[in-house]
Amino acid sequence: LRQGSPEIIFGENKTPQQISDNLIRIHAAHGKALATRVGADKAAEILATWSPGLPAPSYQPSARCLTLGLGQAASPADGERYVAVVTAGTSDLAISDEAALTLQFLGHRFVQINDVGVAGLHRLFPHLEVLQKATCIIAIAGMEGALPSVLGGLLPGPIVAVPTSTGYGIARDGETALHAMLTSCASGISVVNIDNGFGAALFAHALLRQF
Amino acid sequence: LRQGSPEIIFGENKTPQQISDNLIRIHAAHGKALATRVGADKAAEILATWSPGLPAPSYQPSARCLTLGLGQAASPADGERYVAVVTAGTSDLAISDEAALTLQFLGHRFVQINDVGVAGLHRLFPHLEVLQKATCIIAIAGMEGALPSVLGGLLPGPIVAVPTSTGYGIARDGETALHAMLTSCASGISVVNIDNGFGAALFAHALLRQF
Amino acid sequence: LRQGSPEIIFGENKTPQQISDNLIRIHAAHGKALATRVGADKAAEILATWSPGLPAPSYQPSARCLTLGLGQAASPADGERYVAVVTAGTSDLAISDEAALTLQFLGHRFVQINDVGVAGLHRLFPHLEVLQKATCIIAIAGMEGALPSVLGGLLPGPIVAVPTSTGYGIARDGETALHAMLTSCASGISVVNIDNGFGAALFAHALLRQF
Amino acid sequence: LRQGSPEIIFGENKTPQQISDNLIRIHAAHGKALATRVGADKAAEILATWSPGLPAPSYQPSARCLTLGLGQAASPADGERYVAVVTAGTSDLAISDEAALTLQFLGHRFVQINDVGVAGLHRLFPHLEVLQKATCIIAIAGMEGALPSVLGGLLPGPIVAVPTSTGYGIARDGETALHAMLTSCASGISVVNIDNGFGAALFAHALLRQF
Amino acid sequence: LRQGSPEIIFGENKTPQQISDNLIRIHAAHGKALATRVGADKAAEILATWSPGLPAPSYQPSARCLTLGLGQAASPADGERYVAVVTAGTSDLAISDEAALTLQFLGHRFVQINDVGVAGLHRLFPHLEVLQKATCIIAIAGMEGALPSVLGGLLPGPIVAVPTSTGYGIARDGETALHAMLTSCASGISVVNIDNGFGAALFAHALLRQF
Amino acid sequence: LRQGSPEIIFGENKTPQQISDNLIRIHAAHGKALATRVGADKAAEILATWSPGLPAPSYQPSARCLTLGLGQAASPADGERYVAVVTAGTSDLAISDEAALTLQFLGHRFVQINDVGVAGLHRLFPHLEVLQKATCIIAIAGMEGALPSVLGGLLPGPIVAVPTSTGYGIARDGETALHAMLTSCASGISVVNIDNGFGAALFAHALLRQF
Amino acid sequence: LRQGSPEIIFGENKTPQQISDNLIRIHAAHGKALATRVGADKAAEILATWSPGLPAPSYQPSARCLTLGLGQAASPADGERYVAVVTAGTSDLAISDEAALTLQFLGHRFVQINDVGVAGLHRLFPHLEVLQKATCIIAIAGMEGALPSVLGGLLPGPIVAVPTSTGYGIARDGETALHAMLTSCASGISVVNIDNGFGAALFAHALLRQF
Amino acid sequence: LRQGSPEIIFGENKTPQQISDNLIRIHAAHGKALATRVGADKAAEILATWSPGLPAPSYQPSARCLTLGLGQAASPADGERYVAVVTAGTSDLAISDEAALTLQFLGHRFVQINDVGVAGLHRLFPHLEVLQKATCIIAIAGMEGALPSVLGGLLPGPIVAVPTSTGYGIARDGETALHAMLTSCASGISVVNIDNGFGAALFAHALLRQF
Ligand SMILES: Nc1ncnc2c1ncn2[C@@H]1O[C@H](COP(=O)(O)O)[C@@H](O)[C@H]1O
Ligand SMILES: Nc1ncnc2c1ncn2[C@@H]1O[C@H](COP(=O)(O)O)[C@@H](O)[C@H]1O
Ligand SMILES: Nc1ncnc2c1ncn2[C@@H]1O[C@H](COP(=O)(O)O)[C@@H](O)[C@H]1O
Ligand SMILES: Nc1ncnc2c1ncn2[C@@H]1O[C@H](COP(=O)(O)O)[C@@H](O)[C@H]1O
Ligand SMILES: [Mg+2]
Ligand SMILES: [Mg+2]
Ligand SMILES: [Mg+2]
Ligand SMILES: [Mg+2]
Ligand SMILES: [Mg+2]
Ligand SMILES: [Mg+2]
Ligand SMILES: [Mg+2]
Ligand SMILES: [Mg+2]
Repeated sequence: LRQGSPEIIFGENKTPQQISDNLIRIHAAHGKALATRVGADKAAEILATWSPGLPAPSYQPSARCLTLGLGQAASPADGERYVAVVTAGTSDLAISDEAALTLQFLGHRFVQINDVGVAGLHRLFPHLEVLQKATCIIAIAGMEGALPSVLGGLLPGPIVAVPTSTGYGIARDGETALHAMLTSCASGISVVNIDNGFGAALFAHALLRQF
Repeated sequence: LRQGSPEIIFGENKTPQQISDNLIRIHAAHGKALATRVGADKAAEILATWSPGLPAPSYQPSARCLTLGLGQAASPADGERYVAVVTAGTSDLAISDEAALTLQFLGHRFVQINDVGVAGLHRLFPHLEVLQKATCIIAIAGMEGALPSVLGGLLPGPIVAVPTSTGYGIARDGETALHAMLTSCASGISVVNIDNGFGAALFAHALLRQF
Repeated sequence: LRQGSPEIIFGENKTPQQISDNLIRIHAAHGKALATRVGADKAAEILATWSPGLPAPSYQPSARCLTLGLGQAASPADGERYVAVVTAGTSDLAISDEAALTLQFLGHRFVQINDVGVAGLHRLFPHLEVLQKATCIIAIAGMEGALPSVLGGLLPGPIVAVPTSTGYGIARDGETALHAMLTSCASGISVVNIDNGFGAALFAHALLRQF
Repeated sequence: LRQGSPEIIFGENKTPQQISDNLIRIHAAHGKALATRVGADKAAEILATWSPGLPAPSYQPSARCLTLGLGQAASPADGERYVAVVTAGTSDLAISDEAALTLQFLGHRFVQINDVGVAGLHRLFPHLEVLQKATCIIAIAGMEGALPSVLGGLLPGPIVAVPTSTGYGIARDGETALHAMLTSCASGISVVNIDNGFGAALFAHALLRQF
Repeated sequence: LRQGSPEIIFGENKTPQQISDNLIRIHAAHGKALATRVGADKAAEILATWSPGLPAPSYQPSARCLTLGLGQAASPADGERYVAVVTAGTSDLAISDEAALTLQFLGHRFVQINDVGVAGLHRLFPHLEVLQKATCIIAIAGMEGALPSVLGGLLPGPIVAVPTSTGYGIARDGETALHAMLTSCASGISVVNIDNGFGAALFAHALLRQF
Repeated sequence: LRQGSPEIIFGENKTPQQISDNLIRIHAAHGKALATRVGADKAAEILATWSPGLPAPSYQPSARCLTLGLGQAASPADGERYVAVVTAGTSDLAISDEAALTLQFLGHRFVQINDVGVAGLHRLFPHLEVLQKATCIIAIAGMEGALPSVLGGLLPGPIVAVPTSTGYGIARDGETALHAMLTSCASGISVVNIDNGFGAALFAHALLRQF
Repeated sequence: LRQGSPEIIFGENKTPQQISDNLIRIHAAHGKALATRVGADKAAEILATWSPGLPAPSYQPSARCLTLGLGQAASPADGERYVAVVTAGTSDLAISDEAALTLQFLGHRFVQINDVGVAGLHRLFPHLEVLQKATCIIAIAGMEGALPSVLGGLLPGPIVAVPTSTGYGIARDGETALHAMLTSCASGISVVNIDNGFGAALFAHALLRQF
Repeated sequence: LRQGSPEIIFGENKTPQQISDNLIRIHAAHGKALATRVGADKAAEILATWSPGLPAPSYQPSARCLTLGLGQAASPADGERYVAVVTAGTSDLAISDEAALTLQFLGHRFVQINDVGVAGLHRLFPHLEVLQKATCIIAIAGMEGALPSVLGGLLPGPIVAVPTSTGYGIARDGETALHAMLTSCASGISVVNIDNGFGAALFAHALLRQF
């Protein structure tokens, strides 16, 4: 175990063969395996060439992840610690799903709350209680990235902000959201790289292991 | 009259002598004069060397402006059109005051609402009615510049966003706020240059003249 | 109605199915629907798979928009308020059309004036009267983005400047035009994001609702 | 209590008078007060003009902080939770002290470990046990900002990385360290703004309150 | 003669002593000498310590230049070639004066036309004939830098554009003007570095020597 | 004639049909026509659909230009003015050809000298005489863009520098070359946009018309 | 011989025909030839159209290089000088292979050590002896680029750092790694352009020729 | 010994007292000591408060260095290895002197060659033999930073390029020179941080120790 979890495969620069081999090897050792940043075409090729005798991975297109031996995510039971994964808009869903799948793989409970960004703050308020009870909040937003600031003003717990590449023009593929989150005037916020739902989940994992 | 108002003096690159001369000339022609971006030292020198026989300008240190013949600003009477000038934090007050003084100089009514940024959204809500009735909102914020986004989601009227150089590090002297405002996911927002309270007031002036 | 208009669909990150569903839902509720940022291929797929029993959307390739229930745009009658949508060059036409279609959708009159940028100022002068009578001007330009500055020096009304990604090299996909417009030495100008004709129209809408 | 602690004064844009007033007001209400980002000259003026009848603040020049009613920081007793505040070089000490003082103000234990950056990795190893037992690590580094990456590879707990403006040339006042930390290939790392020791402490506070 | 003219001293990084020595040496060899980028304080020190027996330089504070043996600039006689040096605003005058003095030093005729930028285009038109007859135009502007574009659309001759550091915020000390000029949609324009009136004059010199 | 030459078609954002129509229209009026920035595929489509009854354009793939009625370029006869178009490397040839074709279209003589950049300065020296006799030099270079600096130190005439997008990594698609050329320590250099061979030729044209 | 080696072909902007011709020409003169930056498709085309009578090049897909007459690389014999080519992660292997092949072409010995970056420092330690004995170290890393800093603190020899474009978001295609390496607090490090394994090998060659 | 030499003091962020203490401590241990980046005022204070009983350091204002026990630099004797330290202009001398002093401190021979940049290439040629015989060349240049490219084309040995902050406007305090050097089309060049003469000397030291 590296850092308390099986290795997770970064699929972006790997060939289908390399990803398959890694999935099989890690699954054999740990009973589960996860590959992130696997595009739809590459996933299709991996599934099409999968060895018939072996349990096959399943592909989550939104999260762009392949998983093996993962099962269904369960909702947090009463009193169980959980992470709240929140998005500003529907375009940020892919990053939320990557974070959620990574949390599930690492053995954590989570709830996903979507489309509650500043363009329609009224959609946020019904979720405040669930947010307040979370041990950690992952706040995902593109464009101007204002969601973590709003949450930081309302919630006492630690917020890991994830800027996304949603937006165009001077949104600069997520740099504007990234820099805005880093200069937030609200407190209790730290930030990870653009579109890095995986990294936010790993940080939440490092945090949750302290309990 | 250029653009429907006496010329306003841009004090930044001018000598005390040049500012004095311009104030006197414009006051003679229009009964009032305004110089923006005049630092405290330069203002002191202008006032110390002012010709005794002439009506002396008064200096507003927060707004960094010198005015001549301007009198007191009056609150908008019932039913009168007005501009709402809103700041996120107390550090943005200087830009709010520059905008307010420019609006007064141009003959408009305004209300100033301060320190209602996303770090403490609850402070914003008592002001919503006044904001909703304004013909135009000037929303001033530094750091991550989220205030216009929040207002844009709550208010139907046009919002002129002014990023400020408040903040440090990756706030980059206001560039992060500027770019965040330009990529706002809320609607009804347009943006002027960093710290340009003067420009926001002139835009509001161009808008108000259409009535 | 959010902000006084039916929701407008942002087509960029949506599947054809999602866009179709949204168009049908919004059209059912409001009698009209608009989707922006729909590329030609995606539009073709939407039209090819449209349910035969339902009124079909029409596609404006230049504006990259799908509309349903919109009819023909009418010219402003005498004395009617209108927005002037002005471009510097023919390459900026797509953004002008996006703005115009959005204005039409929101129930506003507009005139479009094209190819009057600084490379041939003489082409601008015949249009000055129409520009002076507009309640609001949307000024669209790429490359160095000088058109709003020129208009700002000539016109008293509010100018919403839209930088476009027209140009190459150090034009940086519209950033140079964006920053140039924000530092304009002319007055009465505010700015929206690169290629955001939609946002300029929504700002004009917020402004026009104040009358 | 905002976010579970008395308000902390951001001294940068405030006059000596404003800082004094705030210190007195907060101290009266909570028995303690803290002002960050107070330069040596401003602190001297505050101390010189302090009302003789009132308990005087003390100034920590390295941290650039004024405190009132704070007492001595105590080392964590056996089994007590604590934050490890680690610096790469001696130039980063000021930010470490700002973080430490803020932690103390918020009622947390901490240890400070200095000068253990990648230029001399052997200096890091004797501290590994103390680092492994910390509930949260604040890792502070300028120049290329490699310290959090090294710690992230060695430690299981959550690391809040603080880039500093130490360095010259292409260090760009901390932007290089900031961006390097955000792209770290190690896991369990999140990042705050350049020189923001205060913000890292507040994030640790949000995290520690969850226990 | 390097490049057909006596060496010109770049005063910025030189001590008063070094500048004095160079002025004397070059004046002895060529009967004239020029030092650019000499601040007011440095110039005062040079003049105060000048050897009594030698002809003393004269200082032009606006141009920040010291000259020796230069005499008065003469207007171009009828039919004589000349350079037109044009500024957008009064803040650009220093750069115009640096260019003019350098042209005079190199033995060329010039006319200076000031404050004819896009904020008040009507001020430009009375000068069109003088501009059209110039062999070369040096067009100097800060902020959005639109003047060369306007001139390029009106004039057939070669225009050397000089961006200046006039402006604030996203003007970025002249970078916005520089990049705007480089992406001009008008033709016949080339560009030199920010505030480089000297370089524009040297380019005009290289051009004029071809006759 | 705009600026003393028939309009030149900017092919980048135009459909094949639009380019064909413009070529025919301009050729009818002036006996010659030129379209720049026409990719190979677009050119093939234009040629394939060309009206059989009309004189067909010819395509220069390196220059990415279509021409009609242009004939062969002739070398400058003895004593004739000419432009020297110089490249640093073979990758810059496309921009040299665009400049050359534009010069030919505008009626000027030119010589092309290739691959004489700083990586092999000895290849430059045999061409010095031809360079010294040119009325204007167009110096084209990518990567670090040092060629104009070297030429500026050796040649008395005016040099129009064209940075190209040749290079990778921190070459940033030509920005590094652009900025390097603008800060050249050699004199007599001005600069146009990245890859803008067309613009350099138009500047040379403006310059040559003064004779 | 240019700089002590046969010319090496930069394949990026060349046609298959040009690359073939150059390979044949150089091979004829020197008995060996190398082309770098040849994509898989271009290589396939070159091989498919290769003249049957001539010795054919072989293609190394990872290094994206074509070689002719090169044979197998040999490990350094005891006491032989060698270069250590080290990567932080498997994604950097392509650049390592480009460097290695270039070194082989230039007649040098090398060892390749892979995947020893800061995410797993324990993997580095077994290689320290081999690294200490190398005459020159080429250290290749993407993302935050911390490997050269770590090596610089451990090794006395000269380290040529190569940033790679591995990473996403604010990694900015290698700029973050490049700037981090340049601001390294460790000593004995110099840096080449992003992904420039070729350039690092040529620098090592220049260094090794001094023995 | 760290990396084979006594520690060298980085004076920039240290108090006079800290620098004095370090000089004394290192001198006691090694018989020599060096502090870099010590401004003139700080040096004066150190010298004024130096303990009378101890050997006093000497200050080199150009290099901004304090040295103790260093003696005179000796020229390389026949056949001795040496480093050539070359500058483009006189403004780069300070960095050359910092490099030279560091080399001397580390026990190496060097020659300094000044003011041989591309603005006057003829000044370079008389030095070619000395440059060709150097084991390592340190090439220092500001503005467009073309000197290393020119040297790289002429010399077979390794060139460590040092960009300087000389220049204004788009020279961006050395970033343009830095990026230009990194994209040099000449071979055998690697680069260190802006103004980092010290770092270049340390790299040369790491290289020279391999003999
Ligand atoms: N604070 C300000 N920011 C930007 N422009 C200003 C400001 N104050 C005045 N101006 C404008 O500066 C111009 C006057 O410039 P000047 O002729 O230099 O006084 C006018 O167009 C004013 O509208
Ligand atoms: N072209 C456009 N540019 C920016 N925002 C748009 C555009 N078209 C629609 N929108 C906005 O996108 C939001 C709808 O997003 P969605 O829920 O993803 O369809 C609404 O706030 C619209 O006002
Ligand atoms: N204002 C200026 N801007 C840029 N370069 C200048 C300026 N004034 C003089 N120079 C150039 O600086 C160089 C002289 O530098 P130096 O040897 O340091 O005096 C010559 O190439 C001059 O042409
Ligand atoms: N390669 C080019 N780069 C920049 N501008 C060009 C180029 N080719 C033509 N143009 C200019 O583009 C304008 C014509 O644009 P259009 O009306 O879109 O054809 C004219 O001003 C031409 O001078
Ligand atoms: Mg909070
Ligand atoms: Mg709104
Ligand atoms: Mg106006
Ligand atoms: Mg870890
Ligand atoms: Mg023209
Ligand atoms: Mg020259
Ligand atoms: Mg080392
Ligand atoms: Mg070489």
